[in-house]
Amino acid sequence: MYSNCERAKTLVEALPYIQRFHGKVVAIKYGGNAMISPELFDAVMEDIILLHLVGIHVVLVHGGGPEINEMLKKVGKEARFVNGLRYTDKETMDIVQGVLCGKVNKDLVSTLIRKGARAIGLCGMDGSLIEAVRMTKDGVDYGLVGEIVKVNPGVVEKAIEDGMIPVVATVARGVDEDTAYNINADTAASRLAVALGAEKLVILTDTRGVLRDPKDEDTLIKAIRKDEIPALMEEGVISGGMIPKVACCADAIEGGVARTHILDGRVPHSILIEMFTDEGAGTMIY
Amino acid sequence: MYSNCERAKTLVEALPYIQRFHGKVVAIKYGGNAMISPELFDAVMEDIILLHLVGIHVVLVHGGGPEINEMLKKVGKEARFVNGLRYTDKETMDIVQGVLCGKVNKDLVSTLIRKGARAIGLCGMDGSLIEAVRMTKDGVDYGLVGEIVKVNPGVVEKAIEDGMIPVVATVARGVDEDTAYNINADTAASRLAVALGAEKLVILTDTRGVLRDPKDEDTLIKAIRKDEIPALMEEGVISGGMIPKVACCADAIEGGVARTHILDGRVPHSILIEMFTDEGAGTMIY
Amino acid sequence: MYSNCERAKTLVEALPYIQRFHGKVVAIKYGGNAMISPELFDAVMEDIILLHLVGIHVVLVHGGGPEINEMLKKVGKEARFVNGLRYTDKETMDIVQGVLCGKVNKDLVSTLIRKGARAIGLCGMDGSLIEAVRMTKDGVDYGLVGEIVKVNPGVVEKAIEDGMIPVVATVARGVDEDTAYNINADTAASRLAVALGAEKLVILTDTRGVLRDPKDEDTLIKAIRKDEIPALMEEGVISGGMIPKVACCADAIEGGVARTHILDGRVPHSILIEMFTDEGAGTMIY
Amino acid sequence: MYSNCERAKTLVEALPYIQRFHGKVVAIKYGGNAMISPELFDAVMEDIILLHLVGIHVVLVHGGGPEINEMLKKVGKEARFVNGLRYTDKETMDIVQGVLCGKVNKDLVSTLIRKGARAIGLCGMDGSLIEAVRMTKDGVDYGLVGEIVKVNPGVVEKAIEDGMIPVVATVARGVDEDTAYNINADTAASRLAVALGAEKLVILTDTRGVLRDPKDEDTLIKAIRKDEIPALMEEGVISGGMIPKVACCADAIEGGVARTHILDGRVPHSILIEMFTDEGAGTMIY
Amino acid sequence: MYSNCERAKTLVEALPYIQRFHGKVVAIKYGGNAMISPELFDAVMEDIILLHLVGIHVVLVHGGGPEINEMLKKVGKEARFVNGLRYTDKETMDIVQGVLCGKVNKDLVSTLIRKGARAIGLCGMDGSLIEAVRMTKDGVDYGLVGEIVKVNPGVVEKAIEDGMIPVVATVARGVDEDTAYNINADTAASRLAVALGAEKLVILTDTRGVLRDPKDEDTLIKAIRKDEIPALMEEGVISGGMIPKVACCADAIEGGVARTHILDGRVPHSILIEMFTDEGAGTMIY
Amino acid sequence: MYSNCERAKTLVEALPYIQRFHGKVVAIKYGGNAMISPELFDAVMEDIILLHLVGIHVVLVHGGGPEINEMLKKVGKEARFVNGLRYTDKETMDIVQGVLCGKVNKDLVSTLIRKGARAIGLCGMDGSLIEAVRMTKDGVDYGLVGEIVKVNPGVVEKAIEDGMIPVVATVARGVDEDTAYNINADTAASRLAVALGAEKLVILTDTRGVLRDPKDEDTLIKAIRKDEIPALMEEGVISGGMIPKVACCADAIEGGVARTHILDGRVPHSILIEMFTDEGAGTMIY
Repeated sequence: MYSNCERAKTLVEALPYIQRFHGKVVAIKYGGNAMISPELFDAVMEDIILLHLVGIHVVLVHGGGPEINEMLKKVGKEARFVNGLRYTDKETMDIVQGVLCGKVNKDLVSTLIRKGARAIGLCGMDGSLIEAVRMTKDGVDYGLVGEIVKVNPGVVEKAIEDGMIPVVATVARGVDEDTAYNINADTAASRLAVALGAEKLVILTDTRGVLRDPKDEDTLIKAIRKDEIPALMEEGVISGGMIPKVACCADAIEGGVARTHILDGRVPHSILIEMFTDEGAGTMIY
Repeated sequence: MYSNCERAKTLVEALPYIQRFHGKVVAIKYGGNAMISPELFDAVMEDIILLHLVGIHVVLVHGGGPEINEMLKKVGKEARFVNGLRYTDKETMDIVQGVLCGKVNKDLVSTLIRKGARAIGLCGMDGSLIEAVRMTKDGVDYGLVGEIVKVNPGVVEKAIEDGMIPVVATVARGVDEDTAYNINADTAASRLAVALGAEKLVILTDTRGVLRDPKDEDTLIKAIRKDEIPALMEEGVISGGMIPKVACCADAIEGGVARTHILDGRVPHSILIEMFTDEGAGTMIY
Repeated sequence: MYSNCERAKTLVEALPYIQRFHGKVVAIKYGGNAMISPELFDAVMEDIILLHLVGIHVVLVHGGGPEINEMLKKVGKEARFVNGLRYTDKETMDIVQGVLCGKVNKDLVSTLIRKGARAIGLCGMDGSLIEAVRMTKDGVDYGLVGEIVKVNPGVVEKAIEDGMIPVVATVARGVDEDTAYNINADTAASRLAVALGAEKLVILTDTRGVLRDPKDEDTLIKAIRKDEIPALMEEGVISGGMIPKVACCADAIEGGVARTHILDGRVPHSILIEMFTDEGAGTMIY
Repeated sequence: MYSNCERAKTLVEALPYIQRFHGKVVAIKYGGNAMISPELFDAVMEDIILLHLVGIHVVLVHGGGPEINEMLKKVGKEARFVNGLRYTDKETMDIVQGVLCGKVNKDLVSTLIRKGARAIGLCGMDGSLIEAVRMTKDGVDYGLVGEIVKVNPGVVEKAIEDGMIPVVATVARGVDEDTAYNINADTAASRLAVALGAEKLVILTDTRGVLRDPKDEDTLIKAIRKDEIPALMEEGVISGGMIPKVACCADAIEGGVARTHILDGRVPHSILIEMFTDEGAGTMIY
Repeated sequence: MYSNCERAKTLVEALPYIQRFHGKVVAIKYGGNAMISPELFDAVMEDIILLHLVGIHVVLVHGGGPEINEMLKKVGKEARFVNGLRYTDKETMDIVQGVLCGKVNKDLVSTLIRKGARAIGLCGMDGSLIEAVRMTKDGVDYGLVGEIVKVNPGVVEKAIEDGMIPVVATVARGVDEDTAYNINADTAASRLAVALGAEKLVILTDTRGVLRDPKDEDTLIKAIRKDEIPALMEEGVISGGMIPKVACCADAIEGGVARTHILDGRVPHSILIEMFTDEGAGTMIY
Repeated sequence: MYSNCERAKTLVEALPYIQRFHGKVVAIKYGGNAMISPELFDAVMEDIILLHLVGIHVVLVHGGGPEINEMLKKVGKEARFVNGLRYTDKETMDIVQGVLCGKVNKDLVSTLIRKGARAIGLCGMDGSLIEAVRMTKDGVDYGLVGEIVKVNPGVVEKAIEDGMIPVVATVARGVDEDTAYNINADTAASRLAVALGAEKLVILTDTRGVLRDPKDEDTLIKAIRKDEIPALMEEGVISGGMIPKVACCADAIEGGVARTHILDGRVPHSILIEMFTDEGAGTMIY
C-alpha cells in the first residue's frame, strides 16, 4: 500500500511524459485478449480516459474477431479463411458490419461514457471516413475484403475538436461497389494515424512484442529502426503474424508518425506504462 | 413527359414552401414499407437529400423491425411480444443493437453518401444522445425495453452544424444499468424533435393516416387539432396502432414542435408532396 | 396539369444539378427584354431566388439602357453613340448614375425582398468594388465611359457571407479623376465573376445565342470551346454585338470561370433550364 | 500659424473627448447648406473620417432636397408641397429615388473613399433597412410619402463591423404596397439612431440652433432638457421648422440615445467642435 | 520502490478526481514555508503544473513577506506593524511593489516556464485587475495598505483562455489616490476566486489547519461547515492568525466558491494529496 | 489661445498621418529625461494614449537606469560599469529585476490606466517573451548581462489583440542558466519591433538626434539611409553612445521595420510631432 504522499509523487513523476504528448493525437489499435478479459478491458478503458483527460487526443480503432466468430456460429456459418484473411461473403459481411459497427463499437462508447468520458462511435462509412475498393491480391478472391484507397479524417477531427474520444470500427465504404468492406484493423489504424498527423501509433497484441527467439519472451527487442526491418525479416526474426503488424508500423512512420509501438495487451495498463514511465513496453518501431 | 420549361416552372412553384422551412429542423421517423421496397427507399432518400440541399436540417430517425426479425430467425430465436412490445432479452438486445446501429444505420449513411449527401450514423449511446431506464408499465416485464429519461442533442446539433445529415438508430444508453435499451422509434423521434426545437415531425407509416372509417381510405382526416384528440379516441377513430403514433405527435406539439404529420410511406415522395405542395399528405396533427 | 406526385419527381430530378453548384458563385448579367417584360422579369427573379435558396451564391449584375434612355428623353437630352458606345457627358453620367444605382438597382433589391429573399444593392463605388479610368480607344473621346482597372470584391463577398443576394449596378469609381464612370455591364459581370472565383457566368441576351446563320434561330451553336472562337470570328459567325459578349465569356474562362453561357432572356426560366436540366439553353462557351 | 508643438498639444487636448465616444455609434443627419457649399462639404467629410479613424462608429444619414428640385426642374415637373411636405407622385418618387439613392448617396461614398475612408452606400430598401407604409395624417393625401414602421439595422451593423462608414439614403421599402416611399430624413436618422443604440444623434441645420428670439442669433439656447420642451413650445420658442427637428431629438432620447444635437451646418467643423472641445455648438437636447 | 505497473495504477486511481475538476478554476494562495524551502517550492510548482496539464485552470496568488523583509533590512528600514498589519509608508510600498511584482512574481513565472508550463505574471495594476482604496479600520492609519473595492478579472481570464498559468502579485491599483496599495494576499485570493467563479480556493499555510487544541496537531478539524464558524470562534478554536484566513474562506463560499481549504504547506504535494486522493489534507471549509 | 474652430482644423490636418499608421505596430523605446521630468512624462503618456486611441498599436519598451541607481545607492551598492555596460552581479540583478519589472513597469501601467487607457505590464519572462544567454564579448565578464537569442511575441500580440497597451520591461529569461538577465533596452525594442512586424521604431533620447557637429544642435541630420551609416561612422559623425542606438535602428530596418527614429525626448510631444506633422523630429534612419 502506498501513502497518499507517495501517490502524489508518482503523479508528479508522470509530468514530463504528459507534457510531451499534450495536444498530440495518439491512435490506439485495440483487439485481442485485452478486449476479452474483463480486467484488461477495464485497464485499457482507464488508460484511454486518463490520456484523454491530460489533453492527449486518443483515437481508438478496434476490430472484434471473437464476437464476429460467435455470431457466425450462432447463425450456423463457418468462418472461412483464405491466406489468413477471413473470406467475407455478403451474409458474413452483414454480420461483421452489425457486430463491429453496432455492437462492439457502441459498447465501447457506452463504457467510456459510463466511466466519465465523452465518446462517439464511428465507422468508415460515417462522413466517408474510410473509402475502400475490393481487395485483389495475386488474383485470389477474398470476397468483400476491402483495400483502403482514401481516408477522409474530417469526422474524427471534428469529434476531437468537440472534446470527444472517437471510437472507430474498421468497416469501410465501398467506392467501386455499393457495399461495405471488411478491412484489416491494424492497417486502418495505421492509415488513420497518418491522416490525422498522429504522434504515435499503438498496436495492442497478445505477445510481448518482436522477439529475437519467438519461444523466449525474454528476448524482446525493445526498439527497431525502420531501416533495420528488412534485415530482421530476412533473418526470420520478424515472421508470421508479426510481419503485417510491423509493416503497418513502418507505413505509419513513412507517413510521418513519430513513433509506433507493438505492445503486450496482456499486461494491464501497458499503454500508460509505455507512455508515462521510462520503462517502455513491447517493441518500439521508429 | 414534361418539357424543361415546365420542369423549371415546377421548381419555382416550390419556392414559398422551401422558404418556409429554410434553416429549420425537420425530424423524420422512417420505417415500414418505405424502408423495404427499393423504389420507396430510393424516393425517401432523394426527398431527404433534396430537403438537406435546400437548407432544411433533416434528422432521420429509423427503426428496423424486419431486419431484426430476419436476424432473429437466422439465430433460431423466436420474436416474442408482450402487450404489443418486443420482449427483449439480453441475446435479443445484442442482435437488435447490431442490426439497428451497425447494419441498418450505416447502410442508410452509405446510401445518402453515395447519392451525394454528407451523412453520419449515430445511436442513443453516442455522446449519450438518448438516456433511458428499464421500462416498467403495470408491473409487466418487457426485458431490456427502455423508457427515455433524457435527450442530450449535442452530437446531432454538431452534425447539423457541420453540414451533415444525422441518421439516428433508436437504441438508448442505460443510466440505471450497464446495458443498451431497445426504445420505440416513434417516441425517440418525437423526443428528439422536441430537444432539437424542430419545426416539424414526420412519421412515415403504412397507412394513409388517421381514417374516420378504418376500412375506407377515402375517409382520411386531413388535420386534427391537438385538443380534438381525446374526443376522437373516445369515438374509436384513433385506435389500435394509431394511438401511440398520435400520442407521439401530441407530445411533440406539447414540446413546441409546430406541426406533426402521419404520412403514407407507401406513396413515393410523400415527404416532398407534404412539404412542397399545397396538397399535403396523410394526417396533420397540430 | 401535373399531379403533386409528378411535381415531387421533377424536384428530385433537379438534385444532381443542385449538388453540382451548391456553395459555388454564379454571376448573372441581366438586361434586355428579360428586364422589360413583366413576366420575364418575374421569371428571372424567381430563378435567382431559387438558386439562392438551394445554396448557390448568385451575384446579379445589371445594366438599364431603356430606363436611362427614357430619363434622358424626359430631360430633353438626346442619347448619342460613338462607335456603338453611349457618349457620356457629365450631365448624362449623372442621370446614368441615378437611374442605374438608385432606381433600377434598388427596385431589383426591393423585388427580391418582396419575393422572400434577402438582398443588398451595390455599385462599383461601394467599398471601391470596381475601379476604372477614362476609356481611351483609338484616340476617340467617349466622355465618361470607363475602363475597369481593378475589382475589389470584398463588399460582394461579405454580402454573400451574410446570406444576401448582391445586386450590382455597373457604375465604377474613377481612380484617375473624381468622377463616376459608365462601364459596360457584360465586362463588369465578367470581371466580377473572375474576382469572385465564380463557377459560372450567365449573360442574358435577346437572341437564342450564337447562330451559325444569324437569320435562322435553328442554327444555334450549343457549345463553343474557347480555342474555336478565333476561327468562328474569322468566318463571321461571331459578329456584331455578339463579338464583345463572346469576348467577355472568353476573358472569364481565361480568368478561371469554368463555364459561361449566352442565354436567351426571352425564354422564361432560361437560367433554371440551363442549370437544372439536361437540355441546356443558348450557347455555352467553355 | 501654429507651431507643430502647439498642434501636438491640440491633439492631446482632444483625448478625453475621443475616449468618451470610442466604440460608440453616432448618427449624423446631413443636409442643407453644409451639403451644398464645397468648403462646408469638405469639412463635414473630414470630420466624419476623423471620427471614424479614432474609433467612433459614424452613420451618415442624408437627404438631398436641392438635387431633387434641380432634377424635377430639368424634367419640367413642379415641386408641390402639401402642409410643408413634398407631395410625391409616382414620377416624382422615381426621381427622388434615383437622385437620393443613386446620385447623392454614391457621390458621398465616392468622396469618403477618395479621402481615405472605407464606405458603403445603402438605402432603406437594402436588407429591408427601413420599412414604411403610406403616410396618412388628418386624411390628407401626400402621395408616396411614407411613415416608418420598422427599422432592421442589420446591414448597417454589418457595415460598421466590417470597418466601413455606412451612408444611408432616406428612401424606404413599402410594406403595404410594392413601392418605394419618400421619408423624412430627420425622422429616419432619429429612428436609425435608436435602432443602433447610438450614443449621439447630430442634426446639421442651417440655423445656429434653438433661439430664444428667432431673429437674434445671440439668444441661442445651449441645452434643453427633454421635459422642458413642452413649455418651450407653448412659449413659441420652438416653432416652425424647428418643431419636427426637436421632436426627432426627443424621440431619439426616449429611445435611449444619450444626447442629441441641432448643429449649425454653416460653421465649418461644427461636428468636431461639438464633440471634441468644451465649447459645444448649437443646441443640445438631452 | 514502485514498479511501473504500480505507477500506472496510481495514475488511474486519480481519474475520478481529475474528472471532477476538469475545466474548473482553482485559486491557490501560496506563501509561507512552502515558498522558502527549495524542496517544498519545487513540489508546489510541480503540483500546479500537473493540475494545469490535466485541464484544471490554476490561478496562483502569492505574497512574499520574507523577501520584502530582507529587502527592507538591506535598505536599513525597519518593518513596522500596526495591529498585525505591516505599516506601509511610501518608501516601503515602493519596495513591496518591486519585490512582489518584479522579483517574486517573475521568478515564479520563470520557474513554471523552466518546468515546461506557459505562465504570465500579473499584479493588481495590470488591466486594473484589483482596485483598492486606502484602508480605514477603527480610525487607525496603516499607510498604503489598501482595501479591495473591485476585481476586474479580464486579464486573468484571457491568460487562462490562452492556455497560460496566471501568477498574481497582490499589489492593487489605487482608485482614490495615484498610488499602489499593499493588500492582504489571502483576501486577494478569495476575492479573485469569487470573481473568476472558481470551484475551489486553496490557502497554503504553515500549520496543519484548524486545530481543536492549537498545541496538538492531532486535533485537526477536517471539515467545517460555514455555519459552524461563529460557534468555533466563540469557543476560541478559530483564533489568532487563523481568524482572517477562515474569514477569507467564508467570504469565498458566500461568493459561490464550492469548497475552500486551509492546507499545510509544509507537507510536500499537499495540494495534490488534497485534490487527487481520498485522504484530503488540512481543514476544508465549505 | 486658439479658437475651437482652429482646434478642429488642427485635428483634421492630422488625418493623413493617422490614416498612414492605422492598424500598424509602433514600438517606442522610452527612457532618459522624458522619463524623469514630470511634464515630459505626462506628455509621453498622452502621446501614447492618443496613438492607441486612433488605432495605432503602440508597444512601450522601457529601461529605468535612474531608479535602479537610486535603489542600489539605498542598499549601499556601488554601480559598476565595464566597457560602458553595467556589471550585474546576482544581488544587482535582483534589484534591477524588482525595480524594472515591479516598480517602473507597473507604475507606467498604472499611469496609462489612470489616464483612460487599458494597459498590461510584461517583462521578458512572461510567456517567455525574450530569451537570452549570458553575454560574452571579447572574453570580458559582464555578470548577468544577457544577449537576446529569441523573441516569442505571443503575449504582446495577445495584449494588442485584447485592446491593451503592452508595457515591456527589458529583463530576459535565461535559457542557459536559471536566472534573469539584464538586457539593453534599445536592443530589446529593436528586436521586439522586428518580431512584431512593426512599421516604426522610435527611440527617445536626450539629444536632438545625430548631429554633424556634436557640439552644435543646429547641425542635426534629419534623415540617414541605412547604407550611409558606415561612411558616417568612419567620419566620426556617428560616435560614442550614438553608435549602438544607430545599430539598433539599422538592425530593425534589416528585419523589415519601415522607418526608425532617434527622437529628442526633451521636447514635449516629440512622438506626435514626428508622427502627425510634416515637420518630423530628430533623425530618421530608414
